[in-house]
Amino acid sequence: MLNFDYSIPTQIFFGKDQIQKLPEQISLYGSRVLLVYGGGSIKKIGLYDKAIALLNEKQLSFWELSGVDPNPRIENVRSGIDLCRNHQIDIILAIGGGSTIDCAKLIAAGFFYKGDPWDLMIGKAQIEKALPLCTILTLAATGSEMDPIAVISNLKTNQKIGMGHPAMVPKFSILDPTYTYSVPRNQTAAGTADIMSHAFEAYFSGIRGAYLQSRLAEAILKTCIQYGPIALEEPENYEARANLMWASSLAINGLLSYGKQRKWSCHPIEHELSAYYDITHGVGLAIITPHWMEYILEDSTVDVFKDYGINVWGLDPMQDAYTIARTAISKTKAFFSSLDLPSTLCSVNIDEEKLELMANAATKHGPLGEFRPINAEDVLQILKSAL
Amino acid sequence: MLNFDYSIPTQIFFGKDQIQKLPEQISLYGSRVLLVYGGGSIKKIGLYDKAIALLNEKQLSFWELSGVDPNPRIENVRSGIDLCRNHQIDIILAIGGGSTIDCAKLIAAGFFYKGDPWDLMIGKAQIEKALPLCTILTLAATGSEMDPIAVISNLKTNQKIGMGHPAMVPKFSILDPTYTYSVPRNQTAAGTADIMSHAFEAYFSGIRGAYLQSRLAEAILKTCIQYGPIALEEPENYEARANLMWASSLAINGLLSYGKQRKWSCHPIEHELSAYYDITHGVGLAIITPHWMEYILEDSTVDVFKDYGINVWGLDPMQDAYTIARTAISKTKAFFSSLDLPSTLCSVNIDEEKLELMANAATKHGPLGEFRPINAEDVLQILKSAL
Repeated sequence: MLNFDYSIPTQIFFGKDQIQKLPEQISLYGSRVLLVYGGGSIKKIGLYDKAIALLNEKQLSFWELSGVDPNPRIENVRSGIDLCRNHQIDIILAIGGGSTIDCAKLIAAGFFYKGDPWDLMIGKAQIEKALPLCTILTLAATGSEMDPIAVISNLKTNQKIGMGHPAMVPKFSILDPTYTYSVPRNQTAAGTADIMSHAFEAYFSGIRGAYLQSRLAEAILKTCIQYGPIALEEPENYEARANLMWASSLAINGLLSYGKQRKWSCHPIEHELSAYYDITHGVGLAIITPHWMEYILEDSTVDVFKDYGINVWGLDPMQDAYTIARTAISKTKAFFSSLDLPSTLCSVNIDEEKLELMANAATKHGPLGEFRPINAEDVLQILKSAL
Repeated sequence: MLNFDYSIPTQIFFGKDQIQKLPEQISLYGSRVLLVYGGGSIKKIGLYDKAIALLNEKQLSFWELSGVDPNPRIENVRSGIDLCRNHQIDIILAIGGGSTIDCAKLIAAGFFYKGDPWDLMIGKAQIEKALPLCTILTLAATGSEMDPIAVISNLKTNQKIGMGHPAMVPKFSILDPTYTYSVPRNQTAAGTADIMSHAFEAYFSGIRGAYLQSRLAEAILKTCIQYGPIALEEPENYEARANLMWASSLAINGLLSYGKQRKWSCHPIEHELSAYYDITHGVGLAIITPHWMEYILEDSTVDVFKDYGINVWGLDPMQDAYTIARTAISKTKAFFSSLDLPSTLCSVNIDEEKLELMANAATKHGPLGEFRPINAEDVLQILKSAL
């Protein structure tokens, strides 16, 4: 187990009607609020009206940035920063899924930076501080509600970059599973794949001796396997939505990766798919993950796959390690298919044309992962196998 | 799953030599330090000298409260408060296990209360604030390093009371597994039982639908079962000590119980054993737990025992639920015995004399637990079966 510095300061108000705590909590940090949200879904489910009523009740002033895109764009961030500066905003409230929250994070940090906020994403400038941020989550997927990371796209440069800073961690997040009842079937499935991928990135690690963390990751994976299908079939099943929502936060807030290295494999590959083809993040992950697993299965990795098969899929521990590993990978693939997630790149209209470009882009800072590091050629092979 | 408000603000610096961060971190909160510790063990392992050298390096002033007892006494707390007041202490550094940390917590809170600190334990007065507290942990057991709870004994009134307040949560804790290398065999075993008991108290719950939390508890239990015996046989096995140490913190910081009720069963019973006979907390828990399990096994509880047997002990899921449950309970008992923990009350010199008195005391605020609530008569039966 590696040394680690643990800090997960976000407060969570979890459960039905926890939004009632919004005015009191928000007042701890500010009184001039920038409301950040995406399309009209939060209006359809009545969440927008409820939040506004609560802000008004406490006589909090607010301004709005709406229309934040999925795979949020740097343009959204720039608009938000302008609003904050023009209206002396002192706290940001993001209502939505990971895209909205990520956008709000970079607005919060970019507010204090005089140059263009994209500089902060590409490392041209460093974050020093950020406006306080709070969130109301409407999609169980990215875990952005409890982590310091923002993923922002720049379609002009075909870049989708993830970047984290402690100042961007939300002060508090309201997680009411009923807000995810209306999440469409395909988004619920993609969100489940995203949560699982976060667990996989931490789980499949070459760092020895972080036994506890691996068992915690298995808990997240089992939860997704248990409740993903139920949420698809019964969108208003509270138990399923609650377990998926809490799993989304715990999968990436650090709990699974403290003590291991955080060198990810599938996420950087998927970011290139999204950057070049603007596909849904979780869909890209569901396509790539089983192919990545097949590609990296070898003597040095088989034991972790064996654990995965036994502890997550309940496979017979007496079988041969490779048999268990291959069965577990098949089951992973079949599980994603059972959620009606696409299983090939072709099915999301990605052909061979840009595979090499994307493989190079994904590895431009060096090999991916530390469990079985993969370089551009490896990534290309994985992408080809996923065609 | 129940609604919950999650807040785990303690920062953790985990791993070898993380003590190097002490001066910088402590300076964030204060400059006049009360050092709280127990016997001479921190001197024997060189930890005392190292901490002092680091405090001196940063020119931090410090005073000392040493000799904090196991099952810390209210007298220790009173002495600590006097020291804080006489020397204008602004931060408390506890170095030790749960007893030392618990004592430091009540010193921190009692500092701001004009009356006797025992008032805060018995609810005669409420905590309003506390001095900042940080810890260096030397025993994997109580989880006090990352939770808001203090358990303090008053031998004059035969009371051992647990009480929690957010103001008493440590600001940061340094968890270096090498500081537990010298923990004796019996204390390592008792600590392991204590960690497991925290997981059991959350795991065996009647609250439905907190699936994820149950799987997380299984992760903690498996870790204890994996590494407890190794730590006993190889006291300087870093991997074993590290996993047990991190398990101790996660077992009780709220992670396993958020979304469930926190009505405990075995702990309140054990607190009476310790209050009347001053036995080691983890030893009492190891004795009581299997008997409590046997006593509460019935149709309404068997399914959770079945999960426990399958997921923690790897029992065959095709067997009858009661068979799995009973086997799991036997394995629990055998596991504690394998750690050379006593399995009967007689073996720790507790006879029938005060069983009724303790059963009544344990239930004086009402039945214990919510999984299968137990009243005084139930507790008496459990204690008798443990004789």
